[in-house]
Amino acid sequence: MADPWQNAMDYAVAVARKAGAVIRHALQNDMMIMCKSSSVDLVTKTDQKVEELILSSIKEKFPTHSFIGEESVSAGQPCVLTESPTWIIDPVDGTTNFVHGFPFVAVCIGFAVSKELVFGVVYSCMEDKMYTGRTGKGAFCNGEPLHVSKQTDIRQCLVISEFGSNREPQVVSKIFSTMKKILCIPVHGVRSIGSAAINMCLVASGSAEAYYEMGIHCWDIAAASVIVKEAGGVLMDAEGGPLDLMSRQVVAANNRTIAERIAKEIEAFPAKRDDAPQGDTPRN
Amino acid sequence: MADPWQNAMDYAVAVARKAGAVIRHALQNDMMIMCKSSSVDLVTKTDQKVEELILSSIKEKFPTHSFIGEESVSAGQPCVLTESPTWIIDPVDGTTNFVHGFPFVAVCIGFAVSKELVFGVVYSCMEDKMYTGRTGKGAFCNGEPLHVSKQTDIRQCLVISEFGSNREPQVVSKIFSTMKKILCIPVHGVRSIGSAAINMCLVASGSAEAYYEMGIHCWDIAAASVIVKEAGGVLMDAEGGPLDLMSRQVVAANNRTIAERIAKEIEAFPAKRDDAPQGDTPRN
Repeated sequence: MADPWQNAMDYAVAVARKAGAVIRHALQNDMMIMCKSSSVDLVTKTDQKVEELILSSIKEKFPTHSFIGEESVSAGQPCVLTESPTWIIDPVDGTTNFVHGFPFVAVCIGFAVSKELVFGVVYSCMEDKMYTGRTGKGAFCNGEPLHVSKQTDIRQCLVISEFGSNREPQVVSKIFSTMKKILCIPVHGVRSIGSAAINMCLVASGSAEAYYEMGIHCWDIAAASVIVKEAGGVLMDAEGGPLDLMSRQVVAANNRTIAERIAKEIEAFPAKRDDAPQGDTPRN
Repeated sequence: MADPWQNAMDYAVAVARKAGAVIRHALQNDMMIMCKSSSVDLVTKTDQKVEELILSSIKEKFPTHSFIGEESVSAGQPCVLTESPTWIIDPVDGTTNFVHGFPFVAVCIGFAVSKELVFGVVYSCMEDKMYTGRTGKGAFCNGEPLHVSKQTDIRQCLVISEFGSNREPQVVSKIFSTMKKILCIPVHGVRSIGSAAINMCLVASGSAEAYYEMGIHCWDIAAASVIVKEAGGVLMDAEGGPLDLMSRQVVAANNRTIAERIAKEIEAFPAKRDDAPQGDTPRN
C-alpha cells in the first residue's frame, strides 16, 4: 500500500472540522454562561466534550490505535509515545483565548507511527483556517501550499512567543529575560497570539520567521510540527538538538540559521517531562 | 440637520474598503518584490500609495476639510487638531506586520469636528473585518453590535500591549518592566497582535479587557478610540486622566476599574508629542 495513512488524515480533517464547529458554537452561544459562572469550569467542560468527540470518532474507525489527549492525560491516562499508531490530540489549543473569546483557538490532531510523526492537522476554528501537513507531501492551509519565509538575517525577523501560564517569579524572570534579549538582537518585533499551534502555523505560512516557547506540551506542538517541517521549516529544542516532543520546549523556525540564533538566547527553566511517571507533582 | 456626518462616515467606510483591497493586493502579489528588494522601500511605497488614495478620495468630496495623515506628517505636514472638520488617517496600521505578511493590518480613518471625535472606521483588511463607531450611535463589526467585556476583576483579564519599534535600552526596560508587573498582578495573559487599532477593536469586541501602549501616535488610535468608547469602554492616559490623542500614550479598557488598575502599573517614558513643533528630533 503506497499511501497507508491518507485515509486516516482525511478522517482527521473531517473530525477537526466537526470539533471546531462545537468550539465555535460554544464561543458564540455560551458567552452568557461564561460571564455568569466560573470560566474555568466552562472551559473544562468544553475541552472535555471536544476531546471526547474526537476520541470517540477516531476510536470508532481505528479501534486498535493509541491516544495521547490533553484531557485524558489530565485525568490520569499515560502520556507515552510507543511504536503503536498514536493520535496526539489537543481539543482546544489556546484555552485562555477560548475563555475570553479571543479569536485564535485551534483543534490539533497529530498522528505518529513507530514514534515518527506522519501527519498533523491544525484547525483554527474562529478563522476557519484548516492547516494540514503530511510527512513528505507538503503543508497546506485551506488547500493552498505553505512555504516558510526565506529570511536568513535575524535582524529582519518577526518572532512569536508566549508568556505561558506559570507565574512563579523565577520562571517569569527567565521568560522576560529571554524575550528582551531576542527583541534587542534586534529583531523586527515579537508577537503573542496565545495558541502554540497557530503560532507555528504562522511560521509555516511565512508570516513570522520563528516561534519558541518553554513549558508547552506534546499535544500543543505535535500536529503543528509536521506542518512547519513540510512548509520547509526546522524544529529543535532549546539547546539546538532535535525536537523532543516530550521535553516541554520548542523552537520552530524558517531555517536552521534563525532557529539556532533564537535557541542561543533562550534561558531554559526546568519543567517535568510529559512522559515522566505521574506522581504528586502537577504539570504546569 | 439631525445627522450631519452620516454621509461622511458612509464614505469613509467605502474608502477604507477600497484602501484595504490595495493593501491585500500588495500583500498577495508583491511578496516576491518584498523578498528581493528592501522591505522598507516597499512598505513606504504602499503606505504612501494608500494614504494618497484615501486623501484624494476624501478631498474630492470634502475639499474644505483638514487632514492629519501618518505619511503626510512624515513628509513635513503639520499634526495639529483644529476646530475644522479633520480626518485622521493611518493608511497601514501594523507596518511591521505588513512587511511580514502577518495577517493583522488595518486602514484607520477617524474624523473629528471642533476637536471632538465624531466617528472612527478601522478596516482589518486581511481578516475582512470592518469596525465602525459613531459617537452616540454604537460600535459595530461587519454590522454586528460590539460590546466590551463585563469583567471587573483584573485577575480574570486578558491584556494586550506591544513592544513597539523603539530599541533604546531605557525604553525597552520600562516596556518590559511594565508588562511583567501587569502579567504578575496576575492577569490571565498578555497578547501582542502588532496593530494598535486591531488591539483596540479586540477590546471593543469583548475579546480582551484592556490594551495599553506608550509611544503610539494619534493616527494609530483616533479611529479605534471611538469604537472602544461606543462599545462601552473607556480611554485614558497613563496617569488616569482623559485621553489626549497627541500625548503618545493610551489605555483602552472595558471599564474604569480595569483601566485604572493597568494605568497604575505603567512606567511612562518621555516621547515627543505628536503636535509638538517640528524640529530636528525625529519622531520614534
